Parts: sequence; C-alpha cells; structure tokens
Amino acid sequence: MRADVHRFSIADPSDVSGLKAAIDSGAIDASQIVAVIGKTHGNGLVNDYTRGYLTLCLSILIGERTGRSPEAVREKIPFVFSGGVEGVLSPHYTVFTVAPDGAAAGGEPALAIGVAFTAPMRPSDIGRQAQIDAIAASVTAAIAEAAIEEVHFVQVKGPAFTLADILEDQRSGRPPATDNPGKLMSFGRAACALGVAKALGEVPADKAVEAAVLKDFSLYSSVASMSAGVEVDCNEVIVVGMSRAWSGPLAIEHTTMTDALDVASIHAMVQRLGFSPAPQMEAGRVRAAFIKCEAQRDGLIRGRPHTMLNDGDINEQRHIRGAVGAIAASILNDTGLFVSGGAEHQGPDGGGMIAVIADRPDA
Amino acid sequence: MRADVHRFSIADPSDVSGLKAAIDSGAIDASQIVAVIGKTHGNGLVNDYTRGYLTLCLSILIGERTGRSPEAVREKIPFVFSGGVEGVLSPHYTVFTVAPDGAAAGGEPALAIGVAFTAPMRPSDIGRQAQIDAIAASVTAAIAEAAIEEVHFVQVKGPAFTLADILEDQRSGRPPATDNPGKLMSFGRAACALGVAKALGEVPADKAVEAAVLKDFSLYSSVASMSAGVEVDCNEVIVVGMSRAWSGPLAIEHTTMTDALDVASIHAMVQRLGFSPAPQMEAGRVRAAFIKCEAQRDGLIRGRPHTMLNDGDINEQRHIRGAVGAIAASILNDTGLFVSGGAEHQGPDGGGMIAVIADRPDA
Amino acid sequence: MRADVHRFSIADPSDVSGLKAAIDSGAIDASQIVAVIGKTHGNGLVNDYTRGYLTLCLSILIGERTGRSPEAVREKIPFVFSGGVEGVLSPHYTVFTVAPDGAAAGGEPALAIGVAFTAPMRPSDIGRQAQIDAIAASVTAAIAEAAIEEVHFVQVKGPAFTLADILEDQRSGRPPATDNPGKLMSFGRAACALGVAKALGEVPADKAVEAAVLKDFSLYSSVASMSAGVEVDCNEVIVVGMSRAWSGPLAIEHTTMTDALDVASIHAMVQRLGFSPAPQMEAGRVRAAFIKCEAQRDGLIRGRPHTMLNDGDINEQRHIRGAVGAIAASILNDTGLFVSGGAEHQGPDGGGMIAVIADRPDA
Amino acid sequence: MRADVHRFSIADPSDVSGLKAAIDSGAIDASQIVAVIGKTHGNGLVNDYTRGYLTLCLSILIGERTGRSPEAVREKIPFVFSGGVEGVLSPHYTVFTVAPDGAAAGGEPALAIGVAFTAPMRPSDIGRQAQIDAIAASVTAAIAEAAIEEVHFVQVKGPAFTLADILEDQRSGRPPATDNPGKLMSFGRAACALGVAKALGEVPADKAVEAAVLKDFSLYSSVASMSAGVEVDCNEVIVVGMSRAWSGPLAIEHTTMTDALDVASIHAMVQRLGFSPAPQMEAGRVRAAFIKCEAQRDGLIRGRPHTMLNDGDINEQRHIRGAVGAIAASILNDTGLFVSGGAEHQGPDGGGMIAVIADRPDA
Repeated sequence: MRADVHRFSIADPSDVSGLKAAIDSGAIDASQIVAVIGKTHGNGLVNDYTRGYLTLCLSILIGERTGRSPEAVREKIPFVFSGGVEGVLSPHYTVFTVAPDGAAAGGEPALAIGVAFTAPMRPSDIGRQAQIDAIAASVTAAIAEAAIEEVHFVQVKGPAFTLADILEDQRSGRPPATDNPGKLMSFGRAACALGVAKALGEVPADKAVEAAVLKDFSLYSSVASMSAGVEVDCNEVIVVGMSRAWSGPLAIEHTTMTDALDVASIHAMVQRLGFSPAPQMEAGRVRAAFIKCEAQRDGLIRGRPHTMLNDGDINEQRHIRGAVGAIAASILNDTGLFVSGGAEHQGPDGGGMIAVIADRPDA
Repeated sequence: MRADVHRFSIADPSDVSGLKAAIDSGAIDASQIVAVIGKTHGNGLVNDYTRGYLTLCLSILIGERTGRSPEAVREKIPFVFSGGVEGVLSPHYTVFTVAPDGAAAGGEPALAIGVAFTAPMRPSDIGRQAQIDAIAASVTAAIAEAAIEEVHFVQVKGPAFTLADILEDQRSGRPPATDNPGKLMSFGRAACALGVAKALGEVPADKAVEAAVLKDFSLYSSVASMSAGVEVDCNEVIVVGMSRAWSGPLAIEHTTMTDALDVASIHAMVQRLGFSPAPQMEAGRVRAAFIKCEAQRDGLIRGRPHTMLNDGDINEQRHIRGAVGAIAASILNDTGLFVSGGAEHQGPDGGGMIAVIADRPDA
Repeated sequence: MRADVHRFSIADPSDVSGLKAAIDSGAIDASQIVAVIGKTHGNGLVNDYTRGYLTLCLSILIGERTGRSPEAVREKIPFVFSGGVEGVLSPHYTVFTVAPDGAAAGGEPALAIGVAFTAPMRPSDIGRQAQIDAIAASVTAAIAEAAIEEVHFVQVKGPAFTLADILEDQRSGRPPATDNPGKLMSFGRAACALGVAKALGEVPADKAVEAAVLKDFSLYSSVASMSAGVEVDCNEVIVVGMSRAWSGPLAIEHTTMTDALDVASIHAMVQRLGFSPAPQMEAGRVRAAFIKCEAQRDGLIRGRPHTMLNDGDINEQRHIRGAVGAIAASILNDTGLFVSGGAEHQGPDGGGMIAVIADRPDA
Repeated sequence: MRADVHRFSIADPSDVSGLKAAIDSGAIDASQIVAVIGKTHGNGLVNDYTRGYLTLCLSILIGERTGRSPEAVREKIPFVFSGGVEGVLSPHYTVFTVAPDGAAAGGEPALAIGVAFTAPMRPSDIGRQAQIDAIAASVTAAIAEAAIEEVHFVQVKGPAFTLADILEDQRSGRPPATDNPGKLMSFGRAACALGVAKALGEVPADKAVEAAVLKDFSLYSSVASMSAGVEVDCNEVIVVGMSRAWSGPLAIEHTTMTDALDVASIHAMVQRLGFSPAPQMEAGRVRAAFIKCEAQRDGLIRGRPHTMLNDGDINEQRHIRGAVGAIAASILNDTGLFVSGGAEHQGPDGGGMIAVIADRPDA
C-alpha cells in the first residue's frame, strides 16, 4: 500500500474547492480517501458548529464523486475537525489517501495509515472504562490491519454532547461523569487518550485506569491526539506510523513537548526527519503537522505566572492553541497546522504531543 | 549616569509587592525611578482598567517612599502599561532607574534612558499633525537631555478616550478623526509612531505627514512602540538607547520583524547582544524585552489565510499578541515580555519592532 | 392567496427535524414555502457560519421534498438568518408559506407576503446609491406583485464579505466604502434600510441619499429589518403586510421603539393585535416576531451611561440583542424571537422596529 | 436610627466624583457610611479587577474625609461590587448611610440596615459547613443589632481565589471543594446563600446542609444575594429590611422571580411599594434595586431552548445578567441596577431574587 496526504486551505467552513479541484484534475482518487483531519474557523468549544458544517460539505462532495450518500461517506471515513485557528494559524484540512502500490514492499519504512470506529456512545459512557477499552481495542485493530510497525500519531475523535443530551441520558438513569458539557468533553478526551496508552503499552493493559481519568496526569500517551465534537456519536480512530509493508515518499516523526516553550524537542524531531538545524525550516517541506497542547495546571510556565486558567473572556484552550501553534509555526515555517487544546493525558501537564509528516529525506 | 532595569511579576493589577520589597531592601532607591513599563491582566482595549489600577497602586507606593503625593509621582514618572497577557505571556512591570555614577564615562557605550512629556491633549487632537509634532519635539528633547547616541527603543503612551469624552469634544466644535473609541486609539498610536519617525529622520522632518496616518503604511519607525490608554491625558515619552556618556552593565538592541514568523531577525539581534546561535537562549539572561505586532492587513501570513481580522469573538490584537509573544518567548526563554498590539507605522505591515535589554556580554 | 407561518426550534444549526416532520405529516406543502427567517447559534458577526450551515441543511431538505437541487431552492427562496441568541433568546426559524385559497377575497385584510431578489453585488457596491436603488425597486415590485395594502415589515438580507473578498475587489479598481468587513456590513444594512425607506416614501424618492448612509440617522424606515451575511451575494427582499386580496387567520402589526426601554410602544402594538393590556401576554399567541435594535450612539440610555460601545470583549450587537430581546420576550411571553442588531436607519438612534404576527383576534 | 441610600453613576472604576461631591456639599456625612454596593465595568468573573479598583478608590476617598487609612475603612465598611453591566445596565454604586434620628421611633416601619463580618477564610473553607455556619451567625448578629423586623435583602460578599491561592492551600494539606477558580466562586455563593437561609429559618437550622451545596437546589433563600471576589478574604454581610425602630422616608420590598420571564412577580412587588400597575414605572422613583439571576439548568425557558450553558464565547452569567437586567430595567424605568449572576440557592433554579428600595408611598 501507499499513503499520501493532501492539505487544502479553506476560506470558510463550507469551502471544499480545494479537494474538488484535486479530484476533478485526477490528483486525488476520491475512492482512495481514508480520513480527513483539519482545523476550522469556530471556537473549538461546545458551541462550535464549523466542524459539522465542513464535515457535511466534504461528505456531500466525496459522496457525489464516489456515488455514495453523504451519510455512507461519513460512516466509512473519519472526519476529525478541531475548531479554533487562533493567532497565526490557518484553517485547512488534510486528506489522507491509501492506494495499492505495484512496487514490492519490504524496503525502507514508509508512511502507513489505519482507521477504525467504535460503537456509538451515550453521554454516560464518556470518561468511563468502557470508553477506554473500546478505544484500546480499535487502536489495536487499526495497527494490526495496517501492519504498522512504529506508531507516531493516533487521532481519535470522540462524541461531545450538549446539555440537553446529557440531561436526557441522566433522566434515563444513566448518570454522566459530569453534567457540564465542556467538562464532559474533557472527560472524553482523557478516556480516549488512556485508551490509546493502553493499546500501546504506555499504561498497564491489565488493570482498569478509569480512576486515573482527569486525576493522575502522570499517565499519558505520547502519540495520542484527542478531539471531541457534537457531530459524531461514535469514536473515530486514525493511526499513523511507519511500516516496511508500505511504500511511498513520506515519513512521520513525533515528540513530546515537556512544556509550552520546549522548542528543543521540536528541533530534535525535525532533524530526525532530515532537516538541517536552522531556527526555521525552509518553506514548503511540511506536509502536515499535528499538535496537542494545554495550559500548565499550576498556573506557571518556567516559574512565571500565566493567566490562561483565570480568564473569563477567552477560554484557556484558545489561549494555548494560539501560543503553541505560533511557536510550532515559527519553527516549521508553516501555519496550516492542526493544533488542538485539551491535552489531558496526551503528554505531560503543560506539554503535549507534536507529530510531523514530511517528505522522506532519502525520497 | 547609570541606568538599571528591574522586572517584577504581578499576581494581580494591584500587586506592588515586588517593588515594595526591592525598595525596602535597598535594592532600589525609589527616588531614582524614572519610568515603569509593563503588561497587565486586562484585554488591552478601551475598557481595560487594569492599566490605571496598577498605575494608581504603584504611584501610591512610590509616593509613600519618596514623600510625594501619588499625583505628583504620576506627573514625573511615565507609567506605560499595556493590557493583555495572552497565551504564555506573564503579567509584570519593569522599573527603570537612573543613578549618578562616580565612574568616569567615555568608555564602552552603556544603556541610557531619557524621558519627556507633551502637553495634555483632547480627543480632537489625536491622530493629527499637532500630535505628530508634539511627539517629535519630545523625542528630540529626551535624546538631547540624555545624550543618547544610538536610539533602540522609543515608548510612547498617549491618551485614549471613551465615547463620552469624544462626543463632548465633538459637541464643542472639535471634530475627532473618528468617533469610534477603539479606532481613535489606532489613530493616536499611528500619529505617535510618525512623530518618533520624524524625530529620528525615518520620515522627512520638513513636511506634514498627517495625511499618511493609517493610510500610507510604508512610512514607519523601526524603534517606536506606541500605547494608548484612558488613564493619561498627555503623551509620555521614554527613549532608550546606548551612550558612552552612561555607564553600567546593560545593553539594548532592536530589530524589525518583517512578518509574524520572522524569527531570523530575532536570532540575529540576540547574537548582536552576545548570545550563542541556539534555538533558545539560556534562561535568565533577558532583563526586559519590548515587542510590537499586528495582524497582516491582507489576511495572509506567508501565503496562507489567517482569521484574525474577521473574528467577532476575540479582538485581532489579542490574537497577534498571543502568537508573536509566544514566538519571542520561545526564543528568549522568557515570558515576562512587553508585547503590544496595534503596531500602526511601528514596523512594516504584519511585522513589528522588538527590542531586548540584556547584560552586556563584556560586562 | 393565503399566507401562513410555521416556527420551529433548533437544537443546532443543522437541525431541520421540525420542518421535516411538518412536511412529512402534510402540515406543510414544501412547494408552498416562499421564505424562511430565523435566528441561529453563532455570534451574528462576520465569522458566523451558522447562518450558512442552516441555509444549506434546509435547502437540501426542501430540495429533496420538491425535486429540486439545493442551489435551485436557494435561488428561489430567501433564507434570512441572523446569528446570535443571547440571553433568553431561542434559536429557531420561521417558514412562510403561500397557498391558493378557494375562498373569495375582499373581506377583512389578512396577512400577505411578497418576495423579490436583486442582482448579485460586489463589495464595492455595498452602501452605495446603486444598492439603495436596487432595494427600492425590489420592494416596490414585491408590494405590487403581492397586492399588499399596508406594509408592516420588510426584511432584507444583503451580502457581506470577508476581508479577502473586499481586498480583491479593491485591487480590481473598485474601492469599497470601507475595507473593514464588520463596518461594511453596517454600510450594507444602512443602504438597504434607506432603499426600503425610499420605496415606502419615508425618504424622498427623487433624490440620492447615499450621502446620508451612516451619517444622517434622522432618515430611517420604520418597517425595515436588515441583515447581512457572507452566504448570499444578492439582496433578498421579503415584504410582509396586510391585504384584502389575501385570506387567512393571521395579522401583523409593527411599531417603532424610541429607545431600548420603550415598552409602552410594544404594549400599544400588541393591543392593536387584540391582546389585553396585561404586563405579559398569555403564552402561545405569538406566531412570529421581528425586532431590530442598536446601542444608543451617545453612550447613554435615559440619562445613565451604558458600556456597550466601549466593550472589547463582547460586541455591542450581542449586548443589545440580549437586552432588547429579553424585554420583548418578557412582554410577548415568547423567546423564539428574531432579534437582530445593527439597526442603522431602521428606526431612531438607540431604538428600532418591532413587528409581530399573531392570530387575528376576530379569526 | 435613620437609613438613607445614595446612588452614583461611574464613568470608569476609579470614578468617585459622585460621592466626593456629595460629601463636599454636605449631602453625605462620610462618617455615616455603613456599606457600599455597586456594579462595575468588568466581566464579573475571576479575572475582574474593576471591583478591587473601585474599592481602593472609594476607601481612599472615605479615608481622606474621615481621617482614617484606606485599610481601616475597608475593615469597617463592606464594599460589595459585582462586575458586569451587560446590555442596558449602567455602572454605579449605592452608598448606605445610617444617622442618629432625633425623631421618636415606633411609628411606621422604615428602612433598616445591619452589617457584620466573618473571620477571614482560606480556599479550603469555601463551600463548607464552616462557611455556612459563619454566615448564619453573622446574619443573626446583624439582624439583632439593627433590630430588623422584616428582612428583605441580605447581601454577602465572600472571598474568591485565584488558581495559585487554591493550589497553595491544597499543598498545605487543605483540599478545596474544587480547584477550578470559577467553580469555587460558585461553591462560595452557594454556601453563603444556605447560611442566610439557615439564619432566616428557610432551611432547618439544626442540621448540616453542606451536602446540599450545589446539589439540592430546592433549598434556597428568598432574600439572599451572594457575590464573590478576590479582593476580600472574609465574608461581608449586609442585612436590609424594615423596622419600627428606624425612621426615614424609605421602604424596601422583595420577591422571588420563578424564572427569567417572571414579570408578574416584579409588578406585584412594586405595587406593594405603592406604584400604580403600569407596564413601566415613572422615572426617578427607584432608589436602588438588587437582583440575582441564573440560567435555567435544564437548558430551557418556558419550553424553548436557550444557549447560555453551551456558549464558549460569552459566560452564562454575562448572558443572564444582560437579559434579566434589561427586563427589570424596562419595568423599573432605571438601568442603574445591581444585577448579579450566580444565583445558586438564591431563588429557584432559573429564577432569582429581586429587592427594590424606593420612597415610601406615604412619605
């Protein structure tokens, strides 16, 4: 198999002109699309409807080009959109395609992608062991099916719920982890991350870790990137890594930022991808990048206070996305980055995960 | 003379404990304070009252320690506070002191500071040639009085007005440049910057440039940093540079960022201050840093769209401060930076000024 | 002819379940839908994409039920959505239908509806005499075609543009009234209102009033309600009034609020619709209501200062919609109100228009 | 004794010109000031520093006029400021004075005021039975000391804490009810309200109700108005009611709004104060009004959905204050109202308390 990624800027959340042109020109075979990940214009919080809007528009387009209904498209292809392009960040989406490759595999490792879905979930399932286990099983299945040897990035998009949904489930006798919609998104991201960690052996696979959800932040996955949104009701799982069973010119690397200013880790990672040790990469080399970040919980960064957790006007996630996104953009020389807040159990407190796909230096 | 700078974190805008301890321990002689520049917790827009709050608290403290009234303190010492510590930025203030120095001057250039005030201004004066000329005269006077040989940073805090103030002046027959309070702050910053540029020969000194205000952005000062706030009614001018007439261990450098991602200019500047060419400076070397930034007017950064100018939820200045502030913090390894939006005529469109004070490498 | 209105709550901007059920049950004949007006979840400013999202979802549904494409539906039916349901307001949409009526007309006046579209417009057309004249012609045509005798409400949805659109038009040699996207929306609403006023004789029909746009607020229409959004490129015009040529049980009335607290005018109006003079109407009588409002420009309401025009965190339109919407909701006993900010030339400064559709007291 | 209230508008949070003029003209004797309650320009959330700013400025003024230090003033006079003047609301403060009265008491009941303070509290005390009991004791003491016969309004201002404060207390072995600063404010308001309810017999006085805090909303006080702010460390208690032991021309009434649209209760209450049953009171009769409100927890108002609890851009308290404040302003014909969100246990879910001070109809 051979994986490819195609990134398109969007003028607004209904702008699918980029993919449309690529399909119509033959650059992309619509039937080979396996996943779409992107950043939209909204606030990235509960009342962000730009994620669903772009999902609808893309699923209509792909449906038209593949002869399927939009619903059928959405059941097969994960659309993972995170809202919030604060500061220098740029709204965009990245299309992952997988094609059969006539070339003999078995040479150098190349980019490899696996996809899986869990069953639909209710508000009361979110943040529980059931969600952790379902994610772990899906990640394991996706890795096996795609023969991925080195996992560098696992994106999960889990369901979020409005207050009305939560209260309805609660009235039916199923108590949620919390009845605060934003907080429940946090529970969901945490459980998904621990599910990834369980699948990859980053936390013990044989014991329940539900008790650690949003409590023991020493447990985390170093490759997990979790999102949650009201527009899905199951968990969509995308695993990206390297495999000698795949071919193609792309590679992926990842690292853990220990805090928001940890640029040393980013520089070391891009050098593993073959880039020279300059303060800023030459333009045009990044094919896609995925970043998780979060405001440090003690209210400090390297000893000085930050104000993100006390701000009643701008949500903490919008603050930290704008900051860490700008730092990454300044190094990668690229603003079309997937930067997502809410990094619970997706890296150490105050830090987060960054994964970059680029052309292989030897390719 | 010998200049020094002292930076203090604040827990809230009334927190003057840092300066108080420094005065009480003898580290700072309150009578030697010549200027205070800082970042407070507010939004940095018209309805940001944290600037005035900190000004009041500091002027009470300094007044108590010097036997003057708070009003008398504010008339002699410029307090320049910019609101908005988005993302990783940290609220703080930097105290500038000037002391007589018994050592013979005439050796290596050292940090030098001059201060001046214009007459009070009305809403209708803002953005006009009168403001430009008043600033130019004050900058020239401050340079001469302090014998500054190389100017690296000119901070001006000009007056801002609420709608009520503007309309009252208008009813008295003095039409403002605009009756929008936020927009008038923009006019004021622009006129101040062109005043600095006129004083330093960056725009022709012999012709009126009022027509260029907020129109011809090719005219700008490369060392100007303008703020505006409702808590002052005159323009307060602080000029910082290097002079062989001064002594002490500090140096200042500055550069122009050509756009929000221009890290090459920052790296070159800190190397002029004697730092090694690492992606991130060692911690603790920066004594103070001052940055102006602004969202690029064509809605793009290096070819990709940004959303800062279309956002109805978060003001564009809050976006760009968070982004450029984080980039500078990641290089300087310091979050206690003065980062101010609204960089009209204070650098090229989409870029801005950055000045850093550090220990002289030879000191 | 016989007009009817049907109002549906929405859980999110893609929720078309209400209309779907009504069509499927036979309560609404999809082919009789002539207009849809509603309030969505967004901020109601430039970056509000919930309007377009609901428009897309409704046009897909109506298209499916009438055998037309969504594009064809949108060309024939105006979808006028205003974002922002602050405070007690509730997201919803109101569907206007027109059916042939076998009953002989000529009795009591009944609710009557006319619809028209102008040609598409560019950013540089907005706020100009050309837009005023196009609106006036469309309003006149809609009134004539629907034989409306008494006009009580004219809704226009005009185009808005992002910064990129504006700059592109400007580069093609067509200067806009302003290059600020939010401000250009204001110009467009103003020109549309003056177009309505021209058609109805509220401003002189024989002279150009472009010079009055956003300047002379003594010129206004007492029945105009203007919106602007990026999802349309022409002006969509809906005229609602009373006519003896129509039949049915509904009536519409309107009034002008002289300021934000003018409840006397609302009470007088609902009494003209046959309601008793209680402080709050009995529940369930309102079929739809349309309100325009705006923060008073001198910063005062009945002598006390308001802060809406100085607020950098919450846009003035969000403030005033929440306030006037709540006042109207408390009288009408209904929160599913169309409340729209930006009332330039749509009533006196600080006031606005309110129109209510209810069952005729005699019906 | 004789109580009086004096209300002053403010241009900004440092504007004490109103009280200054009143003292200097002899209208107010500064030594007779017993409490100040007001609304300031901030967001009313954790990072609202306008409350402390106005407190400082007023305590300096009163200190100068009474020969005391600002600190001594603040220890004796409760300054209760709530931030957030959304929509039509107007920033202001109300000064309560108490003077000896030569006239024989024992006639008609008149306005009476009592004040008390609890001991300082730590973050870990907030929301606990200890806070409930301390409030109850203070309320009882204030009632007794002032011989209040009918309690209509109890205002408590309790301490709020930043994340840093909370974590420090937690590290010292004192776990907080929550480590979320905004949520802890909610716990504090709830405990204070239950303390008031205990003192007044609205909840059983003989059993602990800590378990009901933020859980059992059927327990509430009908006269309690709770605020929390970082600028105080003890709980300040103000009890206002009627007493035949007092004289003077003022009266106070209160009622419970059952939901946000409950105008019938407001109308009934103002008629008890002697006003005619018009939809809007004549201007100038209200001397002060105090309102608590909160977004209904099931996401509905009279059956239609509201969006306040899902909004990531505007805090729910800002929404509901703007809405309920506008409704009250439209009836009272006055925008200088104390409207405070966060009505946990201060009225039924979705409703709240309103108290109005006006001239006695017989006076």
